[in-house]
Amino acid sequence: MVNLQRKELDQLFYSQEVHNDKILLPEDEARHCFRVLRKRSGDTIRAVDGKGTYYQALIEKEEIHDCQLKITDRKKSRSQKNYYINIAIAPPKKHSRLEWFVEKAVEIGVQEISFTITEDSERKNIKRNRIQKTAVSSMKQSLKAHLPKINKTVSIKDFLSHCTNKEKYIGHLNDGNRSLLVHTAAPKQKCCVLIGPEGDFTSDEIKESQDYRFQPVSLGDVRPRTETAGIVACHILNIINEK
Amino acid sequence: MVNLQRKELDQLFYSQEVHNDKILLPEDEARHCFRVLRKRSGDTIRAVDGKGTYYQALIEKEEIHDCQLKITDRKKSRSQKNYYINIAIAPPKKHSRLEWFVEKAVEIGVQEISFTITEDSERKNIKRNRIQKTAVSSMKQSLKAHLPKINKTVSIKDFLSHCTNKEKYIGHLNDGNRSLLVHTAAPKQKCCVLIGPEGDFTSDEIKESQDYRFQPVSLGDVRPRTETAGIVACHILNIINEK
Repeated sequence: MVNLQRKELDQLFYSQEVHNDKILLPEDEARHCFRVLRKRSGDTIRAVDGKGTYYQALIEKEEIHDCQLKITDRKKSRSQKNYYINIAIAPPKKHSRLEWFVEKAVEIGVQEISFTITEDSERKNIKRNRIQKTAVSSMKQSLKAHLPKINKTVSIKDFLSHCTNKEKYIGHLNDGNRSLLVHTAAPKQKCCVLIGPEGDFTSDEIKESQDYRFQPVSLGDVRPRTETAGIVACHILNIINEK
Repeated sequence: MVNLQRKELDQLFYSQEVHNDKILLPEDEARHCFRVLRKRSGDTIRAVDGKGTYYQALIEKEEIHDCQLKITDRKKSRSQKNYYINIAIAPPKKHSRLEWFVEKAVEIGVQEISFTITEDSERKNIKRNRIQKTAVSSMKQSLKAHLPKINKTVSIKDFLSHCTNKEKYIGHLNDGNRSLLVHTAAPKQKCCVLIGPEGDFTSDEIKESQDYRFQPVSLGDVRPRTETAGIVACHILNIINEK
């Protein structure tokens, strides 16, 4: 089951409703299963629970509103990580750019995504349903069994004071001492990188983050857009941990 | 001029027409300059030539079809690289994903972008004008003075036999020996990474690439979409060279 081929992608389904040897497929997944992929009762499909397990299951009930599967095999994902990445991003003005960030972060590998509103944020809210759907779709697309935790939007102040990750970084463009994240970040840790909005963090926000022991870092010789900075940070942490 | 702030972004213009102390702004840039940013004759604007030079220039002629600037200052980009990255990608089915790849590659740093058609490519052509526009827009957005070379689409066979980059890699998902690009790639080289289509390269293509001394590499413990793979490869090479 782990050797899924790219061509079988469409056949990975997601459900949180796993009870003993049964899976209840949500309506949107069931609709895709029957209407698009033309699966029928008795067919075998593959599913994930978003918590790290792959399932092989038999369609017992061919009903969109009550699609029941019987588990015939299950396997824990091999990719249980000994590190944890939380990217806390100030949502960019265009929501599509935020969705893009979520899609790519899930593909590259992320355990938690947080959204913070800063003083210069042009966008103060996110479409949480769309974000969640994007994350699920990207998880299935990249054949992963883990869905990252997706947090509610909070103010930067709230985020700074409540963040419990061990290693904490803030990527900003202001002057001052900043070491490269790729050199600074410690592997095998629970870590968080704060990514600012289009207009960057304010000096006060950067100062306050340091009171909470966020280390200022540079993402390299680049001046990326917000969503690109989020991806670059996420990828750097993955590289460090894969070494 | 190098300390451009993010808020001045809209004011970076692009022209290939630099002659002595004059710049002729192309019509679309001039239109943006006058109609959107409301610049007037006598105003100073900033421009890049895509070849590594930033200019400060005075608007002499406030005409969209003949917008002439007089150069008052010029500065070579500090980021003259001692390495060269060519990402050769099989265009994904959705053109918007290809445009996204180009935007992000330019932000992160790329010197050349190539497009190859493979046996399993779902898309056989690209919209070259849109790609070029995306690259220009991303260069200006990320305050760079270099525009990457953007090649015409060629068959994978043609690409393999004509690629003159010194270090050549092919990222694929097939079985077999592959080392991590982040460990394999040599810094300070002219290098190329081949990225396959949704359905990956065929075994024959992988075999043929090895006849041309393309080393098989892995991009990490990920199974990214084509455009994500392109970005991941591009970012890995940037990280290696920044160390």
